[in-house]
Amino acid sequence: MKYDESNPFARILRGELPCIKVAETDATLAFMDLMPQSDGHVLVVPKEAAAEIFELSDAATVACMRMTQKIAVALRAALQPDGMFIGQFNGAAAGQTVAHVHFHVIPRWEGQALRMHAREMAPQATLEALAQRIRAQLGDEPARRL
Amino acid sequence: MKYDESNPFARILRGELPCIKVAETDATLAFMDLMPQSDGHVLVVPKEAAAEIFELSDAATVACMRMTQKIAVALRAALQPDGMFIGQFNGAAAGQTVAHVHFHVIPRWEGQALRMHAREMAPQATLEALAQRIRAQLGDEPARRL
Repeated sequence: MKYDESNPFARILRGELPCIKVAETDATLAFMDLMPQSDGHVLVVPKEAAAEIFELSDAATVACMRMTQKIAVALRAALQPDGMFIGQFNGAAAGQTVAHVHFHVIPRWEGQALRMHAREMAPQATLEALAQRIRAQLGDEPARRL
Repeated sequence: MKYDESNPFARILRGELPCIKVAETDATLAFMDLMPQSDGHVLVVPKEAAAEIFELSDAATVACMRMTQKIAVALRAALQPDGMFIGQFNGAAAGQTVAHVHFHVIPRWEGQALRMHAREMAPQATLEALAQRIRAQLGDEPARRL
């Protein structure tokens, strides 16, 4: 998958599209997936322009993984799910739909199948309420909205 | 999921069970999944005893991610798949079957569904041949068999 500067995550990073932010560092951004596969589905993206994991720099890869683990811990504390799925897809054949590297952090509950990927938009208020619960566990300064 | 010293990956790390090794560092081991979901399915595990990502140390988390990226790059060069799935499951509700943190690196091909997880054993010779092709791309010393 080729990098395309107009992909939605690049536009979020440039402030051209809004997002419901959960956390941010110099190298990464974590925000609510608008079409969540389960309640609390968060995306972690590097600020570096890279379509797939193959071309992501070592520093950005490490930064993404640190943020992903931090989000997983906060999500578990906030929502107490039965499990947690972390996934990173490269190429359409693997299910990638946006040409900017991203890590999915998806809480799982017993007996509850994942909703289809990138199919149905969740209500903004629901996502914002979930984001607040996750942010509260991160113990950071209140995240500003990008 | 609670850590259990008798889990198969801990036994591999202690040399009590064999594995088809792909790569190794002081902190991680990469080896062929015996019940691959696609050809070239590799597992990356930390040497640290941790059942889930939540309790994995920062150093081990970073080391696992570096190895995972390295394996993804080598797999792509060796097998030229159409895509690459990287997944890390925590808890039975998320599909975790072995209580030792592991990252799946799974090549994907267009129109080819993943085989069921942990269901069917692949022939040893097939796995060994795939491992050789991946190792050749890593440019390391020939990996010793654990």
